[in-house]
Amino acid sequence: MNHSFLQEDFLLQNAAAKTLYHDYAEKMPIYDYHCHVSPKEIWEDQKYENLTQAWLYGDHYKWRLMRAMGMDESLITGGAGDYERFCAFAETVPCCIGNPMYHWVHLELKRFFGISEELNPTTAPQIWEKTKQALQNGLTARKMIEMSNVALVCTTDDPSDSLEYHRKLAADGSFQTRVLPAFRPDKVLSPTPEYLEKLGAAAGVEICSCETLLQALGSRMDWFQKNGCRLSDHSFACIPWRPASEEAVEQDFAGVLKGKTLAGEALERYQTWLMLWLGREYARRGWTMQLHLNALRNNSTRRFEQLGPDTGFDSINDRLLAPNLSAYLNALDRTEQLPKTIFYSLNPKDTMMLAAMAGNFQSGVPGKMQVGSAWWFNDQRDGMEEQLKTVANVGLLSKFIGMLTDSRSFLSYTRHEYFRRILCNLIGTWVENGEYPGDMERLGAMVQDICYRNAVNYFRM
Amino acid sequence: MNHSFLQEDFLLQNAAAKTLYHDYAEKMPIYDYHCHVSPKEIWEDQKYENLTQAWLYGDHYKWRLMRAMGMDESLITGGAGDYERFCAFAETVPCCIGNPMYHWVHLELKRFFGISEELNPTTAPQIWEKTKQALQNGLTARKMIEMSNVALVCTTDDPSDSLEYHRKLAADGSFQTRVLPAFRPDKVLSPTPEYLEKLGAAAGVEICSCETLLQALGSRMDWFQKNGCRLSDHSFACIPWRPASEEAVEQDFAGVLKGKTLAGEALERYQTWLMLWLGREYARRGWTMQLHLNALRNNSTRRFEQLGPDTGFDSINDRLLAPNLSAYLNALDRTEQLPKTIFYSLNPKDTMMLAAMAGNFQSGVPGKMQVGSAWWFNDQRDGMEEQLKTVANVGLLSKFIGMLTDSRSFLSYTRHEYFRRILCNLIGTWVENGEYPGDMERLGAMVQDICYRNAVNYFRM
Amino acid sequence: MNHSFLQEDFLLQNAAAKTLYHDYAEKMPIYDYHCHVSPKEIWEDQKYENLTQAWLYGDHYKWRLMRAMGMDESLITGGAGDYERFCAFAETVPCCIGNPMYHWVHLELKRFFGISEELNPTTAPQIWEKTKQALQNGLTARKMIEMSNVALVCTTDDPSDSLEYHRKLAADGSFQTRVLPAFRPDKVLSPTPEYLEKLGAAAGVEICSCETLLQALGSRMDWFQKNGCRLSDHSFACIPWRPASEEAVEQDFAGVLKGKTLAGEALERYQTWLMLWLGREYARRGWTMQLHLNALRNNSTRRFEQLGPDTGFDSINDRLLAPNLSAYLNALDRTEQLPKTIFYSLNPKDTMMLAAMAGNFQSGVPGKMQVGSAWWFNDQRDGMEEQLKTVANVGLLSKFIGMLTDSRSFLSYTRHEYFRRILCNLIGTWVENGEYPGDMERLGAMVQDICYRNAVNYFRM
Repeated sequence: MNHSFLQEDFLLQNAAAKTLYHDYAEKMPIYDYHCHVSPKEIWEDQKYENLTQAWLYGDHYKWRLMRAMGMDESLITGGAGDYERFCAFAETVPCCIGNPMYHWVHLELKRFFGISEELNPTTAPQIWEKTKQALQNGLTARKMIEMSNVALVCTTDDPSDSLEYHRKLAADGSFQTRVLPAFRPDKVLSPTPEYLEKLGAAAGVEICSCETLLQALGSRMDWFQKNGCRLSDHSFACIPWRPASEEAVEQDFAGVLKGKTLAGEALERYQTWLMLWLGREYARRGWTMQLHLNALRNNSTRRFEQLGPDTGFDSINDRLLAPNLSAYLNALDRTEQLPKTIFYSLNPKDTMMLAAMAGNFQSGVPGKMQVGSAWWFNDQRDGMEEQLKTVANVGLLSKFIGMLTDSRSFLSYTRHEYFRRILCNLIGTWVENGEYPGDMERLGAMVQDICYRNAVNYFRM
Repeated sequence: MNHSFLQEDFLLQNAAAKTLYHDYAEKMPIYDYHCHVSPKEIWEDQKYENLTQAWLYGDHYKWRLMRAMGMDESLITGGAGDYERFCAFAETVPCCIGNPMYHWVHLELKRFFGISEELNPTTAPQIWEKTKQALQNGLTARKMIEMSNVALVCTTDDPSDSLEYHRKLAADGSFQTRVLPAFRPDKVLSPTPEYLEKLGAAAGVEICSCETLLQALGSRMDWFQKNGCRLSDHSFACIPWRPASEEAVEQDFAGVLKGKTLAGEALERYQTWLMLWLGREYARRGWTMQLHLNALRNNSTRRFEQLGPDTGFDSINDRLLAPNLSAYLNALDRTEQLPKTIFYSLNPKDTMMLAAMAGNFQSGVPGKMQVGSAWWFNDQRDGMEEQLKTVANVGLLSKFIGMLTDSRSFLSYTRHEYFRRILCNLIGTWVENGEYPGDMERLGAMVQDICYRNAVNYFRM
Repeated sequence: MNHSFLQEDFLLQNAAAKTLYHDYAEKMPIYDYHCHVSPKEIWEDQKYENLTQAWLYGDHYKWRLMRAMGMDESLITGGAGDYERFCAFAETVPCCIGNPMYHWVHLELKRFFGISEELNPTTAPQIWEKTKQALQNGLTARKMIEMSNVALVCTTDDPSDSLEYHRKLAADGSFQTRVLPAFRPDKVLSPTPEYLEKLGAAAGVEICSCETLLQALGSRMDWFQKNGCRLSDHSFACIPWRPASEEAVEQDFAGVLKGKTLAGEALERYQTWLMLWLGREYARRGWTMQLHLNALRNNSTRRFEQLGPDTGFDSINDRLLAPNLSAYLNALDRTEQLPKTIFYSLNPKDTMMLAAMAGNFQSGVPGKMQVGSAWWFNDQRDGMEEQLKTVANVGLLSKFIGMLTDSRSFLSYTRHEYFRRILCNLIGTWVENGEYPGDMERLGAMVQDICYRNAVNYFRM
């Protein structure tokens, strides 16, 4: 037993899978079209004194598991010392059987630090030392990216962002990986006067009406585009759909400028109006639109007040998505202004619905409408297999644009390896079961497409 | 590798599965109780000049996949020549890994044309020629049905239909397969004055009130019954449930007769009233009621205006079904007027709920309440396995009435073979895993029941 | 074939699974923290004349399957003689392929009666005789519990219950299994004047206001606590969430006292208010709160009027749960008054959402927030595997408090064996696939935790 944990053939359960992974998938570069790493940290080549800094300073996945252990919050988000926190996490790891964290941790230890031992209370001291030495001797953010064979990274950026670090990175010939911005106008969709002032300042436009808002946004989109952006991102519980007259929206927006918070139907009117404009702009510019749906954020007000957002208190919503989503896409499609679109739902019960919805609007571009890789809580072996099977059953897996890290950590690129092993194992299993001919050359090319080439051709960055 | 693609033991992964399929399932006739083939085409013995006519003139499954390839619409729904369209589809096929289309295509080529090669751009020319010769030399609609060992076909028919072709077929001793109508009163449930006039004319009743509407419907049901119909069919996003006074419905219906389109609560009132009447009529006549739920149709207005309905722009809805469905069934059950009923939901998240709901109303007849075979987007290996497991876990798989094609094509009978292989493999796997004793005679009889005999006993056509 | 049906290695498909089950899981005592057996029957040591009395007098699972067979109701809930009913069930059993009933029946025959034959019409006569002899010769309720190595049983009790039999059992040194009450205030949450009078009488408080209601409830909780209760239980379609002023609730409650039935928003206001108070009380007392969600009960009014509740006419609801559940838990959490909580949803589409929701509120205690074992219609191999995988993927399976019977029968303890085999097989499969190291000692301890020790440490009864 334990013959293959993290060995060469980890997760590869048949001969076809092994061939597909080792001869085709493994060597492909990474095209990480959606993540949350900081361009500033890349530019400054972020250094870490120890693994706690790299692993535990910002990873809410790890924090949630440590909370489920019943650990004191000081060991989780801080208060305790770095080594103490590391030991607390080392105690958590062996308890993570069946959780992707168990695999992520050991893949990261192996690929970046050459460590094959399990992290647990016994091994914690030597792993602490060994990783500390590596981190203090050149294993910086850029080094992690280089070691991971990353061709391209898309960060996630506010429209008011100056893109200063993206520009510095683009100008720096010494760093091979392209680092491009992605346009995430969440704050424009739930606006405050303060934010609108900031956005206006960035655009050089005084925002005093719907028209000037669009001028400012258009100007920022020009700037993002000039800096290589071809991708936007939105997060909604459910896509808003409440079409209204321009007058009604103008009146709502006038309220916002006076400090009123939009809510209920007024917010839906405003968001519907703006999402229609944005969708058309994305289409015109050849950008791809990402829609992240059914997240339920900041569930614990107590913790939000203590720790702020993105600290491990988000979960899955169960809103009904189909009618609104259909209406929105149809409105864009009617005038042939529907951009390439990627759907993600945090609730796995939506995946079949989204895959079928995607099929309604395929047109002109291979896989124009995509069901994105298994997101967040679904980003684990069962969730990824389920997403891949659904995409295959309802559409064309061979045109899938593949994996992204969605991570804040430079060590997370091993999630692409994890995905690729799962993908190769699934296809290999189909071949072994006689569900598809074992033409390894064709299948290998298909796997490489999904790992890398489909995304390159799709995004055209 | 590729040792078993489409070979004798395709999809049969253990010895018990092979025995069950080859010794029991394979030889059973097909009882296709729900499909959309044209009785006129059967009567006229539809001929095809080439495979594009048989495959691509009307199959929105294929069209959706070609659209996902990014192909031009002229290659999909027309404009381009037949051979060009065939080649475009041949280019699509190898990209369909993991999609049931890959299996359907090759099962059809093998069973009807004796072709074992994969369809792809290289083989397209010779497959085009070979299939053209077969089609032009006697492989007509009737021949396809005969080759498939089809005992019975139920078409899907509007209440105003004269059933001319069903009668002609019944009178024709030379054609062995029974072709019976099924009663699908969708247009009565969303009525227009034009349609009501047509219905009244067919029934010889002037429809000027709720009462005369029911007279006309009853008369048409008598006619359908006389021509062998024992089955109805309905499609709803969600079963309507808004009981109202007869006066309120009469008033709504009077509006319809004057050209008003029913919507919102008025439509729900009318549909609730009519579905109660219809359910009781079905029960009285011993008919079975089919309920197709959670489809979301005609999502692209642009394409609907170009191409009409059923052209590949339908998908899955996510309405909540349980309370209304329970209320409706309960209303019929209270007076013991609930007919045999088959549920289908296009959204797989509903299957467990439907299986449990079925259990509430089982009574008097084996498997009176059925969860129908995996429908449309779910009609693939994973979806069928899921439906079979759910039916088994929550009720009696051994009383399941089995597969239907739901197709517009005479080549689709191979989907029964596909289903039977999946069924035998599932049961065989249970036996191999020691979850059920390996009494092959009993299991074989059970499999034959599910393939054929349960449906015969259930529908009593 | 049939090499392993109900043999030693039933459901254990690899070496690791066999080691985990036979060397670790098998011997652990049962900690049955949620069931519906009668403490009176335990105290009185219920005797059965035959298997129909033990199996068919009260088991709606069996009744539903017999109804799906199309059997006459007299054979199901009564009218026919015991032997006739037994034979009707024996006819049903072989038809239950794929249903957990097939396994439950044969596990119970084997463990309690030493019978290895399949129950079917041929074997029915001798199984009837053999089981009758065993039942008439000492196989009583207490004997069944003892044979099952049950350390503790929590029953389900109304707040007005005197707990007479719990106290008698606690005082009886001869019976080793602890039998504790659980607090299920359903009737307080949907109150009638009659019930409130009964509750007040039990508490020695005249309930004439919200305040006196809480006094009465508090007094009953003291009494339950004194008798070992550490656990409550609630059933809702969806958690109510409609916070209101105390005045509004007081006014609604005044209406109840005058005989008004609360419904709609008034009921939601009252339930929200009371659930907030109850949650805080549970937290203060160190009790665990169980929330059973998305059941849809008494779907057949006709049968309800004939047979009453819990007779096989309940099924799965599909309400949206996330926003209300989050709001309720957050309200308790804000003031650090959220008790340990176990979620159960009858609709499996909710499991991922609940697992992620649990992660929002983990704090201070290992696995404080739990997704309970697969409930009712989900209590079968596929459902249990799904629940275990979801818990593992989204949180810490190693902290899971494990199985419960949820049953009304003393023969159902074999469901723990069924669960343990499935658990060991799942973990064993992970090891065999190289997804976790094969350290049998650690894994064995983990399995034992899930089977028994986690519950002991969690409930602190």
